[in-house]
Amino acid sequence: MSGYSTNMRVKLPLLCIILEAITILLFAVFVRYDTETDAHKWHQELHDHNKTNIDNDFYYRYPSFQDVHTMIFIGFGFLMTFLKCYGFSSVAFNFLIAAFGLQWSTLIQGFFHGFHDGKIHVGIESMINADFCTGAILISFGAILGKASPVQLLFMTLFEVTLFGINEYIILNIIGAKDAGGSMTIHTFGAYFGLMVSWVLYRPQLNKSRHKEGSVYHSDLFAMIGTIYLWMFWPSFNSAITAHGDDQHRTAMNTYYSLAACTLATFAMSALLSGEGKLDMVHIQNAALAGGVIVGTSAEMMLTPFGAMIAGFLAGVISTLGFKFLTPLLDSKLKIQDTCGVHNLHGMPGVMGAIIGAIVAALATADIYGYGMDDVFPLISDGSRTAQSQGVYQIIALFVALGFALVGGVLVGFILKIPVMGSPPDTQCFEDEIFWEVPEEDAGHGQMMAVNTEDNEKHAQA
Amino acid sequence: MSGYSTNMRVKLPLLCIILEAITILLFAVFVRYDTETDAHKWHQELHDHNKTNIDNDFYYRYPSFQDVHTMIFIGFGFLMTFLKCYGFSSVAFNFLIAAFGLQWSTLIQGFFHGFHDGKIHVGIESMINADFCTGAILISFGAILGKASPVQLLFMTLFEVTLFGINEYIILNIIGAKDAGGSMTIHTFGAYFGLMVSWVLYRPQLNKSRHKEGSVYHSDLFAMIGTIYLWMFWPSFNSAITAHGDDQHRTAMNTYYSLAACTLATFAMSALLSGEGKLDMVHIQNAALAGGVIVGTSAEMMLTPFGAMIAGFLAGVISTLGFKFLTPLLDSKLKIQDTCGVHNLHGMPGVMGAIIGAIVAALATADIYGYGMDDVFPLISDGSRTAQSQGVYQIIALFVALGFALVGGVLVGFILKIPVMGSPPDTQCFEDEIFWEVPEEDAGHGQMMAVNTEDNEKHAQA
Amino acid sequence: MSGYSTNMRVKLPLLCIILEAITILLFAVFVRYDTETDAHKWHQELHDHNKTNIDNDFYYRYPSFQDVHTMIFIGFGFLMTFLKCYGFSSVAFNFLIAAFGLQWSTLIQGFFHGFHDGKIHVGIESMINADFCTGAILISFGAILGKASPVQLLFMTLFEVTLFGINEYIILNIIGAKDAGGSMTIHTFGAYFGLMVSWVLYRPQLNKSRHKEGSVYHSDLFAMIGTIYLWMFWPSFNSAITAHGDDQHRTAMNTYYSLAACTLATFAMSALLSGEGKLDMVHIQNAALAGGVIVGTSAEMMLTPFGAMIAGFLAGVISTLGFKFLTPLLDSKLKIQDTCGVHNLHGMPGVMGAIIGAIVAALATADIYGYGMDDVFPLISDGSRTAQSQGVYQIIALFVALGFALVGGVLVGFILKIPVMGSPPDTQCFEDEIFWEVPEEDAGHGQMMAVNTEDNEKHAQA
Repeated sequence: MSGYSTNMRVKLPLLCIILEAITILLFAVFVRYDTETDAHKWHQELHDHNKTNIDNDFYYRYPSFQDVHTMIFIGFGFLMTFLKCYGFSSVAFNFLIAAFGLQWSTLIQGFFHGFHDGKIHVGIESMINADFCTGAILISFGAILGKASPVQLLFMTLFEVTLFGINEYIILNIIGAKDAGGSMTIHTFGAYFGLMVSWVLYRPQLNKSRHKEGSVYHSDLFAMIGTIYLWMFWPSFNSAITAHGDDQHRTAMNTYYSLAACTLATFAMSALLSGEGKLDMVHIQNAALAGGVIVGTSAEMMLTPFGAMIAGFLAGVISTLGFKFLTPLLDSKLKIQDTCGVHNLHGMPGVMGAIIGAIVAALATADIYGYGMDDVFPLISDGSRTAQSQGVYQIIALFVALGFALVGGVLVGFILKIPVMGSPPDTQCFEDEIFWEVPEEDAGHGQMMAVNTEDNEKHAQA
Repeated sequence: MSGYSTNMRVKLPLLCIILEAITILLFAVFVRYDTETDAHKWHQELHDHNKTNIDNDFYYRYPSFQDVHTMIFIGFGFLMTFLKCYGFSSVAFNFLIAAFGLQWSTLIQGFFHGFHDGKIHVGIESMINADFCTGAILISFGAILGKASPVQLLFMTLFEVTLFGINEYIILNIIGAKDAGGSMTIHTFGAYFGLMVSWVLYRPQLNKSRHKEGSVYHSDLFAMIGTIYLWMFWPSFNSAITAHGDDQHRTAMNTYYSLAACTLATFAMSALLSGEGKLDMVHIQNAALAGGVIVGTSAEMMLTPFGAMIAGFLAGVISTLGFKFLTPLLDSKLKIQDTCGVHNLHGMPGVMGAIIGAIVAALATADIYGYGMDDVFPLISDGSRTAQSQGVYQIIALFVALGFALVGGVLVGFILKIPVMGSPPDTQCFEDEIFWEVPEEDAGHGQMMAVNTEDNEKHAQA
Repeated sequence: MSGYSTNMRVKLPLLCIILEAITILLFAVFVRYDTETDAHKWHQELHDHNKTNIDNDFYYRYPSFQDVHTMIFIGFGFLMTFLKCYGFSSVAFNFLIAAFGLQWSTLIQGFFHGFHDGKIHVGIESMINADFCTGAILISFGAILGKASPVQLLFMTLFEVTLFGINEYIILNIIGAKDAGGSMTIHTFGAYFGLMVSWVLYRPQLNKSRHKEGSVYHSDLFAMIGTIYLWMFWPSFNSAITAHGDDQHRTAMNTYYSLAACTLATFAMSALLSGEGKLDMVHIQNAALAGGVIVGTSAEMMLTPFGAMIAGFLAGVISTLGFKFLTPLLDSKLKIQDTCGVHNLHGMPGVMGAIIGAIVAALATADIYGYGMDDVFPLISDGSRTAQSQGVYQIIALFVALGFALVGGVLVGFILKIPVMGSPPDTQCFEDEIFWEVPEEDAGHGQMMAVNTEDNEKHAQA
């Protein structure tokens, strides 16, 4: 039975060391500094092209990168600390997954996008793209939060990053779709992938851990740190790899408007849907962010500020409705246990974002974009596509993302079922104690209460 | 009686949806991308003026914007979580107010500042200015924290943003005063507005909720997250919309020195004023920030580093004294219940900041500013004013800000008294339960203790 | 006995006011705006050299500065809140030390590095360097966390900043070593200085406070905020003052890879070293950061991405081993009580970072660096040194840093022993109550439990 144990003493170190060793080896063979990070090449470039050091792309991407980085490690990490007894795992497994994911995706994305002369060239753009990829993995993590061992999570990362890279390559490079903020490549893919994994890993006895699935007062406040950071920096996320100039500027602004409108919709719906006219933290923590997802494809385009606001408002409404009505249904009818409700925050808004992107693309005209068409829609600009056909390709890309997510999620889900990975039993989900040395005195508030109550019961009996 | 209820099921959704619908409609009619965010116009600009994409103002304002954004949503939001049972409301109502406020102020400020050819042009500067305006609203929120419903807060935002826009227009555009960091337009206006609202909404029975007005250990730590972010990013706040070059650079640096000196003054005064030689978290959380407020007008000017430090030190002393002696007096003598002590952090330091700004302006000489005079004091530079008269105009601006705040605050206070808005009763202030679904097991530490104590009492009786 | 009291009513205000007054006086005499922050000089520069405002270094250093600032105030501050009853002191004394330290180091570093025509010229670079210096002080603070009064901490800051400035001057300007991220000047110096102070201040009766030295569930989550911010922004730290262009870009990227690899090593070692195959939060909070320290010297160089990853992996392994085996030994055998384990996070990785820096420097060739040699190794570039001799000088610099730290730490430790400074007794270490007004209802979780347990015991007796 030891192979089936949740004891991580052997299997986790072994896996971490093997994965890191392989990664370092592949980096040694394939990864090189790009022109902007290599001392020799950059100074040659300065010499040859009359550039100055402040032309280095570091200055025009790195602030966005750090905002994205904050979303990945603080945003996702703390958003998931809402569970009363799973805070250590939420923030620290998020940390582990992302730290491995960004290395692995540098390789995978590098093979597909940045392979020149047999080498992968890395710099600020590869750093942003790697963080983006880990975002998709962390979305999937949200669906299975509390129900997987770190070994399972690392294996999921390994395979999902790989599939992400292939899917992204097909969508962006072969289909020629635009998806700067990843409505399709990140949100749709990450959400439906995670839902499929959760479906395969369905736990019929999960009700034995349900009492630990909720939040306590302070865990909800920790989660709000995650929410607010995601909300604030989403404009940087969507704009981080768009073209310089008006593109980045417009993308950030559209996202900002969408999120603001989404927030009002979320408060409205949360109060409306509750039986007692009270607000629900789950909605505020999650649905208010759907405004960033829903403009992930279109924020780069000439969406107009009020267009962004309509999209954002819609996202808030649909996402809140999803938390209220759809998540319970997914669980009871489809046997998909979606811990964080990623279907509501990333799944539906991602799909809608793809559709909105297709519509806005189909409406592109030379009059609206002027010389700027080349940055947003190069294939329309160079005459190889009409705006309408670009719209159609956008929709094809959505189906590709869904296909990769659904099939990939099922396959990886079955891999994660291998017993040796140390999945926690149904009775010990949503708790840190199975994987962590938890301080004795105060092992999560819920448990602390339990201890006190027990003590009191003893006294009562006495 | 249902119209007077604090049940938010109908009134909050209705208000959110109406406000958002009006906002979107006005955006559709009036708001357009500016040259830096519009694909067509920006690329035309590139073509016509031999510019490059990295000349886009996005790269020279957006990092400052994100720092300001963090202050508004994390800084203000978490600073107010110090209350033991009001953490959800503090951070989430802050979120709601700011999300609506930034949209509404884009319109109001746009009508006054950015109206060209019948359209409001938006880009990074309008985003920063909108966030600034919400800062004033959040200061007012601090005065009535724990005592207002979200409906009241949205109405306050609606009217206060409007008055803010008019006041700001008069001060900056008509009077020609300088106030980059908003000592007058943001801090003085926001604080006295809020104090007047609190005065009109005076609650004679508030002592029935006083036991909930304090903090608990962890809520004070959450509040410190807010404090530290405000403190760190205040240099970005004061410099976010100053002229490019030395102006932004100097403004940030002056603010940084002022805050550092203010922190030492705050620790000194806090230890001195306590009966037992112990430090008080309320002072550290708040008074240490007054150094940012007090140089809000003058940080842009040639204040000198040591001048900034003297100002900051003064701010720390006065603000701490205010928390110790003035806040209780305001309550008992003037019937102004100032939950967060905004008079000490924003009111007095704001007024003093305006005065310091006037003095430093009056001392401006061509020798000190050189060609840089045009950026800091264009009206002195072009000969239409002497430095002394600029100083006088600065003082006039202070009185305008005070006048708008006092009169506006009273008027809006009376509007907020309309019973249908769902103001909580005096017995239920400072608690989340009235507006939120609070997790059962651990409804704030104070309440948890209560539960335990009760249990224990039962056992004792048994 | 009053002179020996821990009552801060007189001594802390007096010290703060005297230090700030001296600082302001010295600023008034010596500190002036530099060319980039002075209105007159900058606009003259624009005029004379055909520059534009966006050439101001503010735009190319300030985002890095704010990341560093966040590490200093949020990162260090919250990392140390892991102690269950010492959260107020951790974050607020960190705040006090850093606020004074940055002012004092502006003067000290100014005298050594930036003294022109009898004046210290300040701008964004002096701001970053001042923050760097406070980083070293905060590392030392970590070694004596919970065991020193704020008066002791301010005195330590006063002297340690001064020694830091001299040490840094010798290493960078006289020896000509490179140390952009401060493996030697910040981490090695700060750690061994703090360990020596802790050694001199050895507390034989500290076991009387040991029950307060641990964490509780939520304090570990607060600490993770610090950890994650340090981890995310370490690339900005190491690159903040490197040369513009490829140097900053490469330094940030190398650090990012090193940290990612370090994180996997830390999880691996943490699971491996625990008896029960469970992860330990202390390791994740600390050892995962050693990857930033270990490339502090070499990240600027052509370390290669896989080289950075090997270094980072090594750092994670050694640091975790140190927490498990070395910290207890230091305490029991060498009488060094290292509260935060700074020897594992900063000491050993700092020394190793210096050695790696020396090796990579010795391997520098004209072929690898091209024209970029001048930015990374100016003394090799201008022919005054070979790469090998640069490597030797790097090692000499390490010994200088160690020497300053060991001797300086002992001397300052003895100064801090002066009884009047109000050091807490051995029985009252690691608790806020001695220096803070702590909210009554919930004075830290540990104490709260104590209260409950006591109550229960009474009932049991009844």
